[in-house]
Amino acid sequence: MVAEVRVIPVTGVPDVQEKDDLVSLIVQACQRQGTPLQNRDILVVTQKIVSKAEGMVIHLAGIEPSEFARQIAREGDRDPRHMEVVLRESRRIVKMDRGVLITETHHGFICANAGVDASNVGGQDLVSLLPKDPDGSAQGIRQGIRERLGLEVAVIISDTFNRPWRMGTMNVAIGAAGINPLQDHRGVVDPYGYQMRTSVTSLGDEVASSAEMVMGKVDRVPVAIVRGVSYEVGPDGARQLLRPPEQDLFR
Amino acid sequence: MVAEVRVIPVTGVPDVQEKDDLVSLIVQACQRQGTPLQNRDILVVTQKIVSKAEGMVIHLAGIEPSEFARQIAREGDRDPRHMEVVLRESRRIVKMDRGVLITETHHGFICANAGVDASNVGGQDLVSLLPKDPDGSAQGIRQGIRERLGLEVAVIISDTFNRPWRMGTMNVAIGAAGINPLQDHRGVVDPYGYQMRTSVTSLGDEVASSAEMVMGKVDRVPVAIVRGVSYEVGPDGARQLLRPPEQDLFR
Repeated sequence: MVAEVRVIPVTGVPDVQEKDDLVSLIVQACQRQGTPLQNRDILVVTQKIVSKAEGMVIHLAGIEPSEFARQIAREGDRDPRHMEVVLRESRRIVKMDRGVLITETHHGFICANAGVDASNVGGQDLVSLLPKDPDGSAQGIRQGIRERLGLEVAVIISDTFNRPWRMGTMNVAIGAAGINPLQDHRGVVDPYGYQMRTSVTSLGDEVASSAEMVMGKVDRVPVAIVRGVSYEVGPDGARQLLRPPEQDLFR
Repeated sequence: MVAEVRVIPVTGVPDVQEKDDLVSLIVQACQRQGTPLQNRDILVVTQKIVSKAEGMVIHLAGIEPSEFARQIAREGDRDPRHMEVVLRESRRIVKMDRGVLITETHHGFICANAGVDASNVGGQDLVSLLPKDPDGSAQGIRQGIRERLGLEVAVIISDTFNRPWRMGTMNVAIGAAGINPLQDHRGVVDPYGYQMRTSVTSLGDEVASSAEMVMGKVDRVPVAIVRGVSYEVGPDGARQLLRPPEQDLFR
C-alpha cells in the first residue's frame, strides 16, 4: 500500500461576504462534493476569502493618496489610491523600481504590494488586504472545525508570493494552525551515515504550493484538502517561516 | 467527480550508480509497487539520483583547495575541498557570510553552495554536483519512457533550494521536459471581470514542492508521480524559471 498524498479541490464555496461563517461554508462545500473532512487533513484556504470574511476589503473611493503614492503610481501606471493602501500596509520598502513595490508588511511578510490585491475581490475599485493575524485566522478555522465536526485538522492560509531569482509566483503559507510548518531534518542521519547539517524543509509552503495545483487563478477554487501528509501538529504558526533578519543574507 | 491531484511516492528505486539506466529503474519501481505510469503523469525525480547516474559525483581526495577555498572553509568550519568544488561550479558569488556561500551556478541557478551536496551521496568524502544539463536530463527520461512504454509523461528534475526572507527549503524544478513550467494567467479575466495584470505561476516549482511532501529527506524516496495536474505540454525547459537579470530587482 503506497502512502500517497491527495490534493482535493473544494469547489462550490459561494462568493464570500464580510461576516460570513467560513467554517460552515467550507464544511458544507466539502460534504456536498462528497469529500468530507477527515482527521489529519490539511485544509488550505486562500487568503482572499479569509480577508473577505474578515472585512479586509477597502473601497478605493475613500482613499486620499499621498504625494509619494501618486509619484509611484505615475511611474508604474497604477492607481495612486491602490499605491497609498500598499504604503499603509507596509512597515518597510524593501525594493522599488518602475512602479513595482516589494515591501515588508506589518506582519513581517516580504512580498509585492504588501499583499494588497485587486483580483478576485468582487468589484471595481475594491482591493483586499492580508488578514490582520493570519495565524489567528487559521486557528479560528481549526477550532471551528473541531467544534462542529469533532475533527483535528490543520489549517494553512495561503497567498501567492513572487520571489527573487526565479520566475513565477509560488503559493506560500501566511497562516498556519495545527501543523509545524518547518520540518527539521538537522542531525538526522542519511542511509549512508552522513549527518544532515542544514536541512530544514518549509513543509507549510510546500503544502500551500501543492494546493495551488488544483486551485488555479480564476476557477474559484479557494480551498483545497491536502490529505495524507506526514506532519507534526506543533508548534504551529506561519510566523516561524519568517526568516529572522540576523539569519538573512539578503536584508 | 472531483478532479483531485495524487502525489504518489515511488519507493524501491535501488541505490543508483554511475551509468545505471534510470528509466528502467524508475519504470520497474512504479510497476512493482502497483502504480504503473500513465499518460499525462508528471514524474518528479530528485537531482541526486540523476547526478549519480550521470557520474556527477566527485571524490574530494582528488581536489586541491585554493587559498580562497581554505579561507571560506575556515570561517564556516567546512571542508576546504568541498568549498573548492563549490567555487568551481559557480560563475558568480551572490552573497557570502560566515561560510555560507550563495552562488550562481554555470546554469544560472542561484542557490547555496552551487548545489554541491554531501548528503545522500553514498560515502565519506563524496559530493554530488548538479547535472550538467538538467533540462536535457529531463528530456532523456521523458523520451526513454516514451520509447519503453509508449506513454507521454512530463518529467521534472527537482532540488531543494533555500530562499531569502523565508525559513526552510522548498523543492524547485531545475529541469523540465514535456511541461511548461510557467502558467501564464495574464490577461485572463477573473469571475468579477477584473483582468489579471501580473499573474504567472511557477507550476514547475509547485509540482516539485508537492512531490517533496512524499519524498522526505532520508526515506530514500527519490521519485514521485504527480497525477491529475492540468498543464501545458510546452514550451518546456526549467531554464524559463530563471528570472532574467533585467527583470530581477534583487540582482
